[in-house]
Amino acid sequence: MPKESKSMTASKSIKATQVFPEHTNHLNTMFGGHIMANIDEIAAITAMRHSESNVVTASTDSVDFLKPIRTGDIVTYEALVSYVGSSSMEICVQINVDNPFDGTSELAVLSFLTFVAVDKDGKKASVPKVYPTNEEEEWLFNTAETRVQQRMSKRTESKNTVSFLNQIKEHK
Amino acid sequence: MPKESKSMTASKSIKATQVFPEHTNHLNTMFGGHIMANIDEIAAITAMRHSESNVVTASTDSVDFLKPIRTGDIVTYEALVSYVGSSSMEICVQINVDNPFDGTSELAVLSFLTFVAVDKDGKKASVPKVYPTNEEEEWLFNTAETRVQQRMSKRTESKNTVSFLNQIKEHK
Amino acid sequence: MPKESKSMTASKSIKATQVFPEHTNHLNTMFGGHIMANIDEIAAITAMRHSESNVVTASTDSVDFLKPIRTGDIVTYEALVSYVGSSSMEICVQINVDNPFDGTSELAVLSFLTFVAVDKDGKKASVPKVYPTNEEEEWLFNTAETRVQQRMSKRTESKNTVSFLNQIKEHK
Amino acid sequence: MPKESKSMTASKSIKATQVFPEHTNHLNTMFGGHIMANIDEIAAITAMRHSESNVVTASTDSVDFLKPIRTGDIVTYEALVSYVGSSSMEICVQINVDNPFDGTSELAVLSFLTFVAVDKDGKKASVPKVYPTNEEEEWLFNTAETRVQQRMSKRTESKNTVSFLNQIKEHK
Amino acid sequence: MPKESKSMTASKSIKATQVFPEHTNHLNTMFGGHIMANIDEIAAITAMRHSESNVVTASTDSVDFLKPIRTGDIVTYEALVSYVGSSSMEICVQINVDNPFDGTSELAVLSFLTFVAVDKDGKKASVPKVYPTNEEEEWLFNTAETRVQQRMSKRTESKNTVSFLNQIKEHK
Amino acid sequence: MPKESKSMTASKSIKATQVFPEHTNHLNTMFGGHIMANIDEIAAITAMRHSESNVVTASTDSVDFLKPIRTGDIVTYEALVSYVGSSSMEICVQINVDNPFDGTSELAVLSFLTFVAVDKDGKKASVPKVYPTNEEEEWLFNTAETRVQQRMSKRTESKNTVSFLNQIKEHK
Repeated sequence: MPKESKSMTASKSIKATQVFPEHTNHLNTMFGGHIMANIDEIAAITAMRHSESNVVTASTDSVDFLKPIRTGDIVTYEALVSYVGSSSMEICVQINVDNPFDGTSELAVLSFLTFVAVDKDGKKASVPKVYPTNEEEEWLFNTAETRVQQRMSKRTESKNTVSFLNQIKEHK
Repeated sequence: MPKESKSMTASKSIKATQVFPEHTNHLNTMFGGHIMANIDEIAAITAMRHSESNVVTASTDSVDFLKPIRTGDIVTYEALVSYVGSSSMEICVQINVDNPFDGTSELAVLSFLTFVAVDKDGKKASVPKVYPTNEEEEWLFNTAETRVQQRMSKRTESKNTVSFLNQIKEHK
Repeated sequence: MPKESKSMTASKSIKATQVFPEHTNHLNTMFGGHIMANIDEIAAITAMRHSESNVVTASTDSVDFLKPIRTGDIVTYEALVSYVGSSSMEICVQINVDNPFDGTSELAVLSFLTFVAVDKDGKKASVPKVYPTNEEEEWLFNTAETRVQQRMSKRTESKNTVSFLNQIKEHK
Repeated sequence: MPKESKSMTASKSIKATQVFPEHTNHLNTMFGGHIMANIDEIAAITAMRHSESNVVTASTDSVDFLKPIRTGDIVTYEALVSYVGSSSMEICVQINVDNPFDGTSELAVLSFLTFVAVDKDGKKASVPKVYPTNEEEEWLFNTAETRVQQRMSKRTESKNTVSFLNQIKEHK
Repeated sequence: MPKESKSMTASKSIKATQVFPEHTNHLNTMFGGHIMANIDEIAAITAMRHSESNVVTASTDSVDFLKPIRTGDIVTYEALVSYVGSSSMEICVQINVDNPFDGTSELAVLSFLTFVAVDKDGKKASVPKVYPTNEEEEWLFNTAETRVQQRMSKRTESKNTVSFLNQIKEHK
Repeated sequence: MPKESKSMTASKSIKATQVFPEHTNHLNTMFGGHIMANIDEIAAITAMRHSESNVVTASTDSVDFLKPIRTGDIVTYEALVSYVGSSSMEICVQINVDNPFDGTSELAVLSFLTFVAVDKDGKKASVPKVYPTNEEEEWLFNTAETRVQQRMSKRTESKNTVSFLNQIKEHK
């Protein structure tokens, strides 16, 4: 049985990859979609480690690609549980881009996702609480409530839009 | 040279796929990241068709996975240009999930992305205007301005957060 | 239960893709085999949609690659049911190649495949009839019988050749 | 510089693979399209070995899938040059399916493809003649002319159909 | 039931592949890891053919990459059973690199792996003996005992190191 | 320009992945070859970070698969530079297998690889020295010389065997 409460550091997960030609278009720029797939993978691992259960993706927040990522760059995805509800977890993924040839490194993209813990029958499962252990984690933890509320109103809006478009289609 | 103005229908692009075991986890649920990669691909094709130029992903809006997509489902990604700025394009991707065994079909996910048209040197290129041709397109077109403004304030917020976290790291 | 008869348009399926370096050889020409794999995928989706059942590939007709497809091209696969037997379906796949940079588009390859509908135990299942709804569909529908007969004699020939070669091998 | 004439055995190429879940649908049957991609790859290797030049796929003949290939089967693709024109080569691919658990093996599919040898500028290059060295090769060599002629009339037919369908589209 | 004894030639397996951009880094050199994956695949097929059972990889010996393999090269992996224990098999994989453009070919890498035959419950299964049929096979067969003993002492050393490092971690 | 000397911690790289069906055979056991490919990738990233240059794989030491890795396991690859020569680097990769459902974790596999740093023309480049910063790193650093010498004698042996087998082939 999972513990009642765990540190954000305990389930922190890291995935370093190098950008090769197969991940890029003919401009040598990494596909946005490939970055999204890596974000989802490392975030799911963190959510599983924290909840000690299976998880499903509930949402991904908006992602801004602030600078192009290129062939040869080393991209490191770092995921933390930044907030937990009763069965949901907010995961923060930080993407650092290193140029291995001059040793520079920069946090380039920040992404938040929400996962839900599920048991063997696919029903929602409860998850341990989480607490921060350093300045960076505290900041992510303290700012979570605002993000959660923005996300819930966005989700309602999204559901309404989908219903509206489904209606238009039926009338066609 | 591209025309001054094009209909939303002219660059509409469709990609039908079937969900196979390799796209799912051990719960037979399709990975969120795999869906995101398909969304990015079909959106980029639409952006290229409208702008008749190369494009780079600038951002993806939040995506809510409202129902699980399973092995055997047929998933159709449908992309439209829903708004254009001087060199940017907002692309709307609608994801329909069909159960081929009972003929039912449902709009399950709605996603908005932003692409920037670039010329051969990677500099921003101007893009034709766009106009709607039916009720659905009109709705997407008329609601675009609100989304664009929300996105711009989100992007500023995102840049600030990244700067803040880069500072914390330097002080470590 | 599937209907007695369906239009060719009802199960029409489209898949747009862009040719990236990973799909090409060092001459920047798309692999014939990769094109064949895409043809099979979209044809199977159409066959499933029409029959509302699982399907297996029975044969692919000859395919002529009339012009090379290159990195950066947008390739659209469009599949229609063009004929049905008791449990078999002939699927026509049209491949359009677009140059996104000048807006030109051309039907480059035409391919016919045969699928068989199967039930949960892998046994042949019956499929609804099909009817055309426009000039193009009519042409494909009316010319089907000739193709079906050529294919059946080819199949007999193919079986004989395989038997003959199996005999030679045993005598070695 | 390539020799004037080479044996069919000299460029014979073999590729053994095992069918794993990622190559099959939810019926555990190998995708037709995946088989086609493997056929194209091994045939291209043989064509390169014979011509000592780059090659492009000109056509694939019809392929009949006479029995389903399943997860766990070992599939061996064996390719031979069975005929050469001035710059074209007909490649015969034989597909053996082994059940490793009882040691049985069977020639299950026979496929013919045509490749054209090209030089560094993509222009047609001449290729060495080919001669058979055993009973099986002789049979493939002697029956080639008939296949070549059937293929040429098929190709003309295919070009006409594509032109016809392009015309219909323009009138729409 | 498998025979008591089989020749090394009976289960010999071959896999020819061409090196394409997706298998190489930005220096056009094939990834070591991709070569290792191909070695494992063809060796497993040979072990299955010899044992007529499922197999699991027990170890791979050291591999020296004596010369770089480049885009366009044709790489042929050739696997033989070179020794059998009660349920284990040593597989020798020879890697030939052909330059298709000048017809030269060279044995570039030699690799030995060990597989264990397992039954349906995952328990060790016994395997037929093996015997050589030509000079090359004899050499591989006669030198096997030395390799097996080196491997066993290496394996003990490896287990000790892993235990030692696990202890350090627990004390942290 | 790279520094004269760097700590082992400075270039340490981590890659967490989850084992999904596509990485396993029909026994739900992860392929040895897939593990080798991941080892090579993370080791190359570490070698690039330490040397601030491109690198090529020179050799992989023997790898013992001490316990099967299964679908659903979380596998973490952790790579350190454990020794440097003038232009070569020995990289140690530790593979931890976590069962996310009970929180247990175990060092399961240890692997050593050698990379050579190369400049833009593919010539050997010099690399900074390396020093350990904790007990584990010290142990890996102090035991390196023995491994390097074993590897060099193995490499000579490997070259001789390849020459011998090339000779046999020529005499055939």
